[in-house]
Amino acid sequence: MASHGFWSLGGDNAGANTGSQSPSTPRAWCQAAAQKLSGGIGSKLCALLNVGEVEKAAEPGAKQPPETAAGTCGCNKSCNCTKAAVGFSDLYSTDLLPATDGDTKTMTFLQEVVDILLAYIVESFDRETKVIDFHYPNELLQMNNWELQDEPATLDDILISCRATLKYAIKTAHPRYFNQLSTGLDMVGLAADWLTSTANTNMFTYEVAPVFVLLEYVTLKKMREIIGWPDGRGDGIFSPGGAISNMYAMLLARFKMFPEVKEKGMSSVPRLVAFTSEHSHFSIKKGAAALGIGTESVICIKADQSILVALVQGFVPFFVSATAGTTVYGAFDPLIAISDICKKYNIWMHVDGAWGGSLLMSRRHRWKLDGVERANSVTWNPHKMMSVPLQCSALLVREEGLMQNCNQMHACYLFQQDKHYDLSYDTGDKALQCGRHVDIFKLWLMWRAKGTIGFEAQIDKCLELSEYLYNKIKDREGYEMVFDGKPQHTNVCFWYLPPGIRYMEDKEERKKHLHKVAPVIKARMMEYGTTMVSYQPQGDKVNFFRMVISNPAATFEDIDFLIEEIERLGQDL
Amino acid sequence: MASHGFWSLGGDNAGANTGSQSPSTPRAWCQAAAQKLSGGIGSKLCALLNVGEVEKAAEPGAKQPPETAAGTCGCNKSCNCTKAAVGFSDLYSTDLLPATDGDTKTMTFLQEVVDILLAYIVESFDRETKVIDFHYPNELLQMNNWELQDEPATLDDILISCRATLKYAIKTAHPRYFNQLSTGLDMVGLAADWLTSTANTNMFTYEVAPVFVLLEYVTLKKMREIIGWPDGRGDGIFSPGGAISNMYAMLLARFKMFPEVKEKGMSSVPRLVAFTSEHSHFSIKKGAAALGIGTESVICIKADQSILVALVQGFVPFFVSATAGTTVYGAFDPLIAISDICKKYNIWMHVDGAWGGSLLMSRRHRWKLDGVERANSVTWNPHKMMSVPLQCSALLVREEGLMQNCNQMHACYLFQQDKHYDLSYDTGDKALQCGRHVDIFKLWLMWRAKGTIGFEAQIDKCLELSEYLYNKIKDREGYEMVFDGKPQHTNVCFWYLPPGIRYMEDKEERKKHLHKVAPVIKARMMEYGTTMVSYQPQGDKVNFFRMVISNPAATFEDIDFLIEEIERLGQDL
Repeated sequence: MASHGFWSLGGDNAGANTGSQSPSTPRAWCQAAAQKLSGGIGSKLCALLNVGEVEKAAEPGAKQPPETAAGTCGCNKSCNCTKAAVGFSDLYSTDLLPATDGDTKTMTFLQEVVDILLAYIVESFDRETKVIDFHYPNELLQMNNWELQDEPATLDDILISCRATLKYAIKTAHPRYFNQLSTGLDMVGLAADWLTSTANTNMFTYEVAPVFVLLEYVTLKKMREIIGWPDGRGDGIFSPGGAISNMYAMLLARFKMFPEVKEKGMSSVPRLVAFTSEHSHFSIKKGAAALGIGTESVICIKADQSILVALVQGFVPFFVSATAGTTVYGAFDPLIAISDICKKYNIWMHVDGAWGGSLLMSRRHRWKLDGVERANSVTWNPHKMMSVPLQCSALLVREEGLMQNCNQMHACYLFQQDKHYDLSYDTGDKALQCGRHVDIFKLWLMWRAKGTIGFEAQIDKCLELSEYLYNKIKDREGYEMVFDGKPQHTNVCFWYLPPGIRYMEDKEERKKHLHKVAPVIKARMMEYGTTMVSYQPQGDKVNFFRMVISNPAATFEDIDFLIEEIERLGQDL
Repeated sequence: MASHGFWSLGGDNAGANTGSQSPSTPRAWCQAAAQKLSGGIGSKLCALLNVGEVEKAAEPGAKQPPETAAGTCGCNKSCNCTKAAVGFSDLYSTDLLPATDGDTKTMTFLQEVVDILLAYIVESFDRETKVIDFHYPNELLQMNNWELQDEPATLDDILISCRATLKYAIKTAHPRYFNQLSTGLDMVGLAADWLTSTANTNMFTYEVAPVFVLLEYVTLKKMREIIGWPDGRGDGIFSPGGAISNMYAMLLARFKMFPEVKEKGMSSVPRLVAFTSEHSHFSIKKGAAALGIGTESVICIKADQSILVALVQGFVPFFVSATAGTTVYGAFDPLIAISDICKKYNIWMHVDGAWGGSLLMSRRHRWKLDGVERANSVTWNPHKMMSVPLQCSALLVREEGLMQNCNQMHACYLFQQDKHYDLSYDTGDKALQCGRHVDIFKLWLMWRAKGTIGFEAQIDKCLELSEYLYNKIKDREGYEMVFDGKPQHTNVCFWYLPPGIRYMEDKEERKKHLHKVAPVIKARMMEYGTTMVSYQPQGDKVNFFRMVISNPAATFEDIDFLIEEIERLGQDL
């Protein structure tokens, strides 16, 4: 076994050091940025970021220099921006709208926040900044006063809190952030999300969300057309994520076969059983547990294995969830073969395309989902491969009216039947939720901005990058691939073997060591803040890296960097 | 029966007319605003809003005047803002970050969007603007090109889409918007939501949301302290809304009594039955349907009636949902009495305080929830009475660890057990969801800005306003109250009887007429855009208005206005 020191994080002050690529202080970053940016934006950024002040402010008893937060407006002296005229250290939230004469203060305050956000955004895309300024939970708890008080704080304090929050946040827009299936930050999507927050409404009725309800209608129809359902007919909803979308599908499948379950519960139906692919997402089991079906009634079969694994005596198979893009390997189930079996036995076919569904936008890659048009329902998360800001997950359903029948409870305080407009636009009663967040506008606006071909180009590029990574490491010394063949999606799963392990004779000893490599490299990545990639074990396979690329900011150079960085951080292990 | 004309919407062009209070054109509004606002913000607003242009642009074939969207920056001529230098009609989303040298264009574009939003915000709080510029769905579909295309649109078109979307949106911040339990727009909450969108991350692990995970921890603890659980101990989660929070509670109650249900489903447990108050929220039944319990196993009892309505032979009562603030009447169930019964029979006691839970923040009103500390779980939606931007709903649970046991599926690609930090902060496995939107920051930042006493003042004021309304109409000619006595929450339920109905002898005929009054007045409110209030029938009670006040912008004058407006719009009916 390795010594304690062997598994430590590579020297003192690793956390305080940003690595050789990064300027050593925020101020240095500012100076670098100021030189780089045109139109005086660089110096404006510096003034606005005020990164140094956050740390000072976090120390107990430290005082902000007066007027710092409202400092210079970034325009030249003769500009008559009102910004400089407002100091936030004497102002409270009660001075903002709806306060009388709160207009100017409100605009100045919100502009100040926006300036902080704009600076953060520009910084996030800069490869010379850290992906993360990592601190352990107990440290982070000490780094600011996060406690809630009885008394109000000044707007100055609120701005400081905003800066502190961003200082310790993950820069998910960073071109070297690869940690999750959802990465990147789309500027039009962000603008749309800001607008959505400002509109602050609810999807349940046309009455309170006329435009958003229409846009959901338009967008769901477009997605169904892309799936291949005739004339885009069918139904659907945007839900709070893929797990809930999958749960919807299971709920609909059960209701379709046994509508009495709604009133009478599971005691009125036979013992049900669901099938899903071996590497399917855990939400299928979570859904089965919640819906009273039970996790033991979810049979995980190998994706390419016949769905008819005996077992059906006494059970009623009601649901098959085929996975289009598994979470770890990015594998696609053979949808046509599965649909044949579902058809033969009259089982609801669901396609969990939370991760892989977006490949439908690509003429080059959509064949991987051939047969999806035969599904009864499809989960498709634009917040993953299409880089729409979180949350944005759609469930698409082939049969019209089923969602409404399955979920409606006729709440008469919301869905009055004597309203003066076409009630078919009051879609809230088909949801599991009552109030529902507006998730549609960011997708719609991005789609408008990029066009379908723009999404296609973005997706194709990510797949190209992953192929580049795969080709680069598949025969490289020190790497082993976790599964054979070219990845189907952008998931590239691999082991990095440090030189010390590379030639170990004892297979078990080697495995034991290898299992610890990825966690340490990952911990070092976070301490240095240079990049973030996920790892995990799976079955009998010890910890391996799962590289996924959904980040539109990533380039070939970032892939090169990732490989070098893994080697730099892992060579001594 | 009334003639067709009688029920029509009060004259030609009602939709185009904003009523006597409002300037007749957007341009007139601009001019009025320009005079009112200091520091040149008024004229800046006008330049930015460009309201007139939207309509022009919406006409097929209409062209934007060149450079309009990028027009003047609103600062004086000598200002060197970069804004004026960028024209959006030749730019596409691909010119923004991560594009090389995309910094300036990105900041300018986002600033342009923010300017549109700031103008919208200021306008929204202005009583002289309409709450809604209403159009029927088929009209609205024609008013802009909402269809999604293969080809990209210019950033100019994107800005036009933003303006058009806001033009037809409900101004939920408007002081006279009373339509839902969630109204108003808090400026600090909005700033926090913009920051949340910019941070664009996911609540499942500390790794990707360090600050937000800590803030959720801090805030949930504070909320549990306020409920009255010793030292704020317990558990909880922010979920995508009250319906899901209530479903969580039911799921936990079932799991607590029969943990085997998770693996074996409902076939392993006896026939369950849940109790809830007569006027409880429909989500209790929705949850029962989804969880395989069945809506028929939800027994609605009168809130003040003993929970032990015979019926328990052969059934296992496992869940009682007491309502703290019913949706329509705002009534509070007697929690202490209910908790005694739950204790005696060992039933899980849930308090659905989605609407009324926030009264816990008020020393004057929290007695209405006396006994809440005896509950096993509490739903509490800060997005309602505390005016936190949508969505923000908490489920608080008294027992620690239960959520984790109930919902965890040990997904090893997310919740690796060999991470280098304290894994108790990876809270994602206790959720029903996998990815989870960051809903905490807006609540936390608002709480910091207001302090507990600020929330208290805001809530107390809403209750004061509703008492004012109640006192003003309870003996006023033409009004009848729907239930006796002072409202417990801000719900004031009443009928307005136009003079023509007021003295009708035939009770049935009167009822029939009265049923149609509220829908017509509501339709007219929307056509004129002056205010919005909800109405509904309930049981044998024909359509009545349900006025609720959660909007911090509302004043006594707005209540006066509401009464006058109902009379103005309804007197001829």
